[in-house]
Amino acid sequence: MADFESIAKQFVEFYYKTFDENRANLIALYRPQSMLSFEAQAFQGAQAIIEKIQSLPFQKVAHRVDTLDSQPSSETGAILVLVTGALLVDGQERPMSYTQAFQLHPEAGTYFVFNDVFRLVYPAA
Amino acid sequence: MADFESIAKQFVEFYYKTFDENRANLIALYRPQSMLSFEAQAFQGAQAIIEKIQSLPFQKVAHRVDTLDSQPSSETGAILVLVTGALLVDGQERPMSYTQAFQLHPEAGTYFVFNDVFRLVYPAA
Repeated sequence: MADFESIAKQFVEFYYKTFDENRANLIALYRPQSMLSFEAQAFQGAQAIIEKIQSLPFQKVAHRVDTLDSQPSSETGAILVLVTGALLVDGQERPMSYTQAFQLHPEAGTYFVFNDVFRLVYPAA
Repeated sequence: MADFESIAKQFVEFYYKTFDENRANLIALYRPQSMLSFEAQAFQGAQAIIEKIQSLPFQKVAHRVDTLDSQPSSETGAILVLVTGALLVDGQERPMSYTQAFQLHPEAGTYFVFNDVFRLVYPAA
């Protein structure tokens, strides 16, 4: 079994590279039972999730990952991933902080996204 | 079965109230298999986790929850919770942003914390 930290790191690199280059391709990471909470809006299933991701109102986006934590999250090989980072959209100068939690479930030698929760983080003060 | 959103909300209220009033009591929420990643430091087991929480170098702390998302995270009733909020320690004026992901596992009619990942979030710019 590959170790969960390597899998989480590979997943996160692949996820945001794909998001920033061609987000339509993220559909391969979701299944009918996958869930996305995006800024409190809930979506279920690969098709609904990818439609939401593609509908986001920016053309160019770049994610910067600042922190990445992972833990085994079930007896059957699932992995919890928590990311914090910055998001730069459409060439704006001011990045936005975000946090995103994923739970990856194993499937036939690979993983899919079972849980996905995204939130922008505003300055606390 | 109580719905996952109500359980997540009750858990989060109880967790931070207990943290801010008497953090030693949080030990009841963890089990030997529980994991905590706190600012990239990893701990496993209720005893190690509570020692870390109690060793945090502040006397007074107040958590403010800004967002709370939850999703079912297994076939067996686990719940993923993602919180963003602000942390005010020792009467300092400037709050710090944080994000915390939990996975709650069901056990005999209640829940314990299987996964716990905490990160401060610094302004992106």
